[in-house]
Amino acid sequence: MNESIFILKGNIVYSKNQTELAICKQGYLVSKNGKTEGVYQTLPFRLGGNPIHDYGDCLIIPGLVDLHVHAPQYSFRGLGMDLELLEWLEVNTFPEEAKFESLDYAERAYRIFADNLRKSATTRACIFGTVHRPATLLLMDLMEKTGLDTFVGKVNMDRNAPEYLREETEESAEETLEWIKDVLHRKYQNTRPILTPRFTPSCTDELMEELKKLQIRFSLPVQSHLSENQGEIQWVSELCPWAEFYGEAYDRFGLFGADCPTIMAHCVYSGSREIARMKENGVFIAHCPESNMNVSSGIAPVRRFLQEGVRVGIGSDVAGGSTENLFRAMAHAVQASKLRWRIQDQSLQPLSAEEVFYLATKGGGAFFGKVGSFEKGYDFDAVVLDDSRLAHPQPLDIRSRLERMIYLGDEREVRAKYVKGQSIRLS
Amino acid sequence: MNESIFILKGNIVYSKNQTELAICKQGYLVSKNGKTEGVYQTLPFRLGGNPIHDYGDCLIIPGLVDLHVHAPQYSFRGLGMDLELLEWLEVNTFPEEAKFESLDYAERAYRIFADNLRKSATTRACIFGTVHRPATLLLMDLMEKTGLDTFVGKVNMDRNAPEYLREETEESAEETLEWIKDVLHRKYQNTRPILTPRFTPSCTDELMEELKKLQIRFSLPVQSHLSENQGEIQWVSELCPWAEFYGEAYDRFGLFGADCPTIMAHCVYSGSREIARMKENGVFIAHCPESNMNVSSGIAPVRRFLQEGVRVGIGSDVAGGSTENLFRAMAHAVQASKLRWRIQDQSLQPLSAEEVFYLATKGGGAFFGKVGSFEKGYDFDAVVLDDSRLAHPQPLDIRSRLERMIYLGDEREVRAKYVKGQSIRLS
Repeated sequence: MNESIFILKGNIVYSKNQTELAICKQGYLVSKNGKTEGVYQTLPFRLGGNPIHDYGDCLIIPGLVDLHVHAPQYSFRGLGMDLELLEWLEVNTFPEEAKFESLDYAERAYRIFADNLRKSATTRACIFGTVHRPATLLLMDLMEKTGLDTFVGKVNMDRNAPEYLREETEESAEETLEWIKDVLHRKYQNTRPILTPRFTPSCTDELMEELKKLQIRFSLPVQSHLSENQGEIQWVSELCPWAEFYGEAYDRFGLFGADCPTIMAHCVYSGSREIARMKENGVFIAHCPESNMNVSSGIAPVRRFLQEGVRVGIGSDVAGGSTENLFRAMAHAVQASKLRWRIQDQSLQPLSAEEVFYLATKGGGAFFGKVGSFEKGYDFDAVVLDDSRLAHPQPLDIRSRLERMIYLGDEREVRAKYVKGQSIRLS
Repeated sequence: MNESIFILKGNIVYSKNQTELAICKQGYLVSKNGKTEGVYQTLPFRLGGNPIHDYGDCLIIPGLVDLHVHAPQYSFRGLGMDLELLEWLEVNTFPEEAKFESLDYAERAYRIFADNLRKSATTRACIFGTVHRPATLLLMDLMEKTGLDTFVGKVNMDRNAPEYLREETEESAEETLEWIKDVLHRKYQNTRPILTPRFTPSCTDELMEELKKLQIRFSLPVQSHLSENQGEIQWVSELCPWAEFYGEAYDRFGLFGADCPTIMAHCVYSGSREIARMKENGVFIAHCPESNMNVSSGIAPVRRFLQEGVRVGIGSDVAGGSTENLFRAMAHAVQASKLRWRIQDQSLQPLSAEEVFYLATKGGGAFFGKVGSFEKGYDFDAVVLDDSRLAHPQPLDIRSRLERMIYLGDEREVRAKYVKGQSIRLS
């Protein structure tokens, strides 16, 4: 690659650390060969002559990272919100996911998902598909075309799923292998496979063992669900009586972070040992606050995860969550943390705007490498926000404008978006 | 008025009762002299010849009713969300409200509020202004121009407010009298005054007595706050040691529904006696779920209010709430009720989509009279929603499309709006 430098001018905001913002008003953000070269209040002389995109009074933030989203569920976002997790899967989710056996249906559905994710402030995502190999490949083709950087998983389920959706153990393993081979042949630039056992109730021990073989053979990361709902946890304790806690049902098979990057969604009810194991193994928790409200799961103790040094990011969890808009997920994270503090446990302080912004950028971004910050050497993922729709009579500082975006922003504010230095088409 | 009849065609949805929707797919909604004449699957022969507005596949719902919103706080919506109520008032609210002494500032700020409320799905609102008479009149002028039907109140505060905002008792009463006279002179069609003692901590007993005199003299309704926050309740018990519960601090002065229509916002911590008194007095509770999250107040027991037959509506409570969008308030109401059920009290079932839709239409609408329904004789307040932005690959029934609006809808879906049979300009 030839050396490629360009510069964005605007009000640059990113996380200095977990609790503080770095703000450079009317500053220069320099991209060099797809990486962030630096943030400057005054453009260094040596960088003169490179193209500058002046975004005026816009905000420029790192791209948002969605650590947990189900692409096939996008079609019923905001629907069927009157059930708890296990019933919700049975009534809403499985019948819809079954439709993705049809590539025609999958294409219509996934195009909507891919288009809307492309237009959002999200630059990175970890995505669940369905059990279907062809539809999952189609989803990956579509995601690749968006220019976003994603992990996509073919789901595995060989038990406790309706017959029309359940795989045989061997079939599940073989299809996963074929899917991985297909993916490797396609030589995507931005789209990577991730092993996706749906959750313990859906996967036999034998299937977990097969998936571990594939994990080792192809050095794949893993995503799944953990300790979302009390009925689910009880069920897992019956299915895996040997597990001291739910997380062990993954860890026993080497699918819990110890030797492969792993995301576990929810962790609403993770206890001390599970949290300690996640920390030890470097598991990423995908906190999905809206989903945890909608499916009546509860509120995850994010403050505790942060205090104990567990890695945490934010997930939209569509369609447990209703929207791919991660600004809304950040607001829900703050709101849920306040209710948890008020109603459940006053020892855990609510989350601040700074903290949820950190989670949605650098926190989750770490799963992708050096992602989610404008520190030197980070992948150049940037979102330019024109917040002029949100009219106001008084002057507002940059920090306030960012907080307001968390509560009120959506894709209308996204004026430009870059992933690894490449501009993303938004129209 | 000459007889004026027109007809809207589309997918008509309104509340049959608290828990069920009435749905008329591709039906006719007839407006006659500003009232709903009827909903018809087939247009009666006698109505032929009247103008029909065919809204194709749009949804047509009763206008939404915002029972509690602070117009001057609209400028800081989505900001300063890291404080509890009493501190939040001191740090965010009072300094901003003080600016409304300037009519110039008030005009800039209130134009934004009025414009955005006009474009939203809201047709009715009960609005707090500030203590300032001229600015409150200006707000009423602007609201009148929108065509929406609203109650607007000049706020009263003669204690426990910063000096720059606190009125003297006599001054507060006199300014309120002058304000009412000014309002009467202006002969608004859609804009009415409502007495607005901010809350007990802001109003001395003497001021309450003066307000009661005005209430009787002009037959005015009342709006205020009640049992939002535990610190506030404790404070009220110290200020009014004679009150057995917070609500008595209003009821003693005849400002609690017994002989005047009254809205009390929040009621997060209302106990049995307070609830019983509200029921007895016909007080309307404005449930403001997002505000109750953002200011860390808690979650009001709406299911209990409904079970006990207390009147309830929905409030955005901007800027405790971040948005005037009542769809979002409905979603927050469902979400909050689920968390309350899960974490706090499993005896109170979560609210359904049908129930929060009822609250946001007919529930709150009752404060305005026969409002919030398409039953015969109700004021013709209708909102036409084009939800085609929310793309989906599968067919969706009307009920599902309404639920989806609750989670995902905003002013972009509002294609037309009518208040008392008059079309509202949306551009």
